[in-house]
Amino acid sequence: MNAVIAVDVMGSDSGPAALVEGLKFALDRRAPVEYIAVGDEDVVEPLLKKFGIFKDPRVSMFHASEVVSMDEKPMQALKHKKDSSMIRALELVKLGKAQAVVSCGNTGVLMTAGTIKLRTLEGIERPALGSIMPGRDRNFVMIDVGANPDPKPQNLLDNAVLGANYARAILGMEDPKIGLLCNGTEEGKGNSLVQGAHKLLKAAEGTINYAGRIEGFDVFEGDCDVVVCDGFTGNLLLKTLEGATKMFKGILKEELTRTFIRKIGIWLARKAFYDFKERIPVEKFSGAPLLGLNGLVIKAHGSSEARQFEGALGIAARCITEQMNRKIAEDIARISPFIAQTKAQALEG
Amino acid sequence: MNAVIAVDVMGSDSGPAALVEGLKFALDRRAPVEYIAVGDEDVVEPLLKKFGIFKDPRVSMFHASEVVSMDEKPMQALKHKKDSSMIRALELVKLGKAQAVVSCGNTGVLMTAGTIKLRTLEGIERPALGSIMPGRDRNFVMIDVGANPDPKPQNLLDNAVLGANYARAILGMEDPKIGLLCNGTEEGKGNSLVQGAHKLLKAAEGTINYAGRIEGFDVFEGDCDVVVCDGFTGNLLLKTLEGATKMFKGILKEELTRTFIRKIGIWLARKAFYDFKERIPVEKFSGAPLLGLNGLVIKAHGSSEARQFEGALGIAARCITEQMNRKIAEDIARISPFIAQTKAQALEG
Repeated sequence: MNAVIAVDVMGSDSGPAALVEGLKFALDRRAPVEYIAVGDEDVVEPLLKKFGIFKDPRVSMFHASEVVSMDEKPMQALKHKKDSSMIRALELVKLGKAQAVVSCGNTGVLMTAGTIKLRTLEGIERPALGSIMPGRDRNFVMIDVGANPDPKPQNLLDNAVLGANYARAILGMEDPKIGLLCNGTEEGKGNSLVQGAHKLLKAAEGTINYAGRIEGFDVFEGDCDVVVCDGFTGNLLLKTLEGATKMFKGILKEELTRTFIRKIGIWLARKAFYDFKERIPVEKFSGAPLLGLNGLVIKAHGSSEARQFEGALGIAARCITEQMNRKIAEDIARISPFIAQTKAQALEG
Repeated sequence: MNAVIAVDVMGSDSGPAALVEGLKFALDRRAPVEYIAVGDEDVVEPLLKKFGIFKDPRVSMFHASEVVSMDEKPMQALKHKKDSSMIRALELVKLGKAQAVVSCGNTGVLMTAGTIKLRTLEGIERPALGSIMPGRDRNFVMIDVGANPDPKPQNLLDNAVLGANYARAILGMEDPKIGLLCNGTEEGKGNSLVQGAHKLLKAAEGTINYAGRIEGFDVFEGDCDVVVCDGFTGNLLLKTLEGATKMFKGILKEELTRTFIRKIGIWLARKAFYDFKERIPVEKFSGAPLLGLNGLVIKAHGSSEARQFEGALGIAARCITEQMNRKIAEDIARISPFIAQTKAQALEG
């Protein structure tokens, strides 16, 4: 069976046209993947025609009359937006018609509805949002960046397994090195959550490639391929980095264009900025999967443009063809005896 | 009485010479501040002479035969390094001979020894580390960046009071706007700690200028003057930002110097980079105070050079002359009835 992706082409800040164009770019790559464009026929059909992919045998349409808005509450949406493109796309995965959903829509609704509709994989209590981050020499996975703000130590061990498999599928790493994000690397460092998670990760060593605690200084230096954290911290880090990057870029641009001489200088050196951008491939990795569910849910940035959406579709395709979820289930089965043992010991101690 | 600062000139990665030079720069500013250089006489005296400040009436020496090393454990140092420059400097504050300590030494030891020797101000349970961060148009205070990785909601309220007073003293803000760092601004967002702290901060509104939750995207945009968080998250944010900045700078530099043409371009635009640096004044604010103690403890970066150390000394002087600690005590006294009430309500509910 081919990989099939249910594409929510409605919910986004950029509008359906950008997303359908992204779908066209994905089709151009000629991978053996099929897509179901989910959304209002009256909107989607003309767009598929406009981008010349209406008759492509790899594309089908699934009508959904509603759209989940960006400020809707999860339980509200589940109750009142049953015929929305997002909910319908999730149902296509639940029914086995597709293996993945890709959506730019409301993150809270996508995560809650995804978890309720698809349920977690056996042995996993809570899903986690993974994100690919740029490193100096190679990219790495940060997990969780926002699904579970109040996890238990056990959840961080699950995050390690999920993140490692995501790094294998998307970054092609064979034995990803896992680090636990902490405010220091010495024994005893961390809040109580991290201290508990450290013990569990240590106990699972051998099954997972755990390298110990890692500090914020070092995450970009390639010391670890997977950086594990709670969803509150991960979300703050991701957004603060985005904020800082925007600020630095803004100030630098202002300064570089302040005088005529500077403008000439920067025109001469302009290729450096393209190459800089090239080395930090944010577009390619602009989708964050909600990992640990029976089926794949990819959250693309709310304001994704066509190329970014294509990147998110590519991530979905890769996770499917690499059979990531099957491998996660195998890993979880392999570590569960360790966990049971550690838990029993903790109860005895 | 003049402001008096006890200066630990021994414990640092850059060596005592850089720190004594920093002291010289601070003296050049001719503020009404006295300094006690604490350290091994055989090292300190020649350095004071070298930089021509040995006979300056504003400088005295206090001999301490030992140095706390960077990998020492706090309780070890307290027990076995009683005659170290750091411990002696703290004692000078305890004895009322100085109002502040500035040290580049071992952070863990400085925080633990500082807390044990000086004790917290009445009404404050745990001290917090404040840091001044660069914003697009103006700087802001982030607190706590590492003192207390596992706080209770009440501690975050104290952080708000401490941070607001620090912003008043150092950034000259009259009524600093306080934000609570969170993974979203909607009601109900945050981990359980932040949800609890939000309620307390709301209850203290009127006494403090609480603006609500703030997301990572927005901290650099000037929405808030004080960003409150737990010491685990704050430390990770600070270090991750430092790591990211280093990486971006490194990659940009590589790209900008890759070809001869780019080098010419960048030479023409070189002043833009100076101006960029000027707008992000990290040196001026390179000391982070441990706030909430009976006395002031300023942690300067372990590898501070002279100008950075001068910045840390300047922060100490400013906090003393602005009578920051007296104002913190007044604020705490003012909000304590609110807190007692909120706690009583929480127990009843």
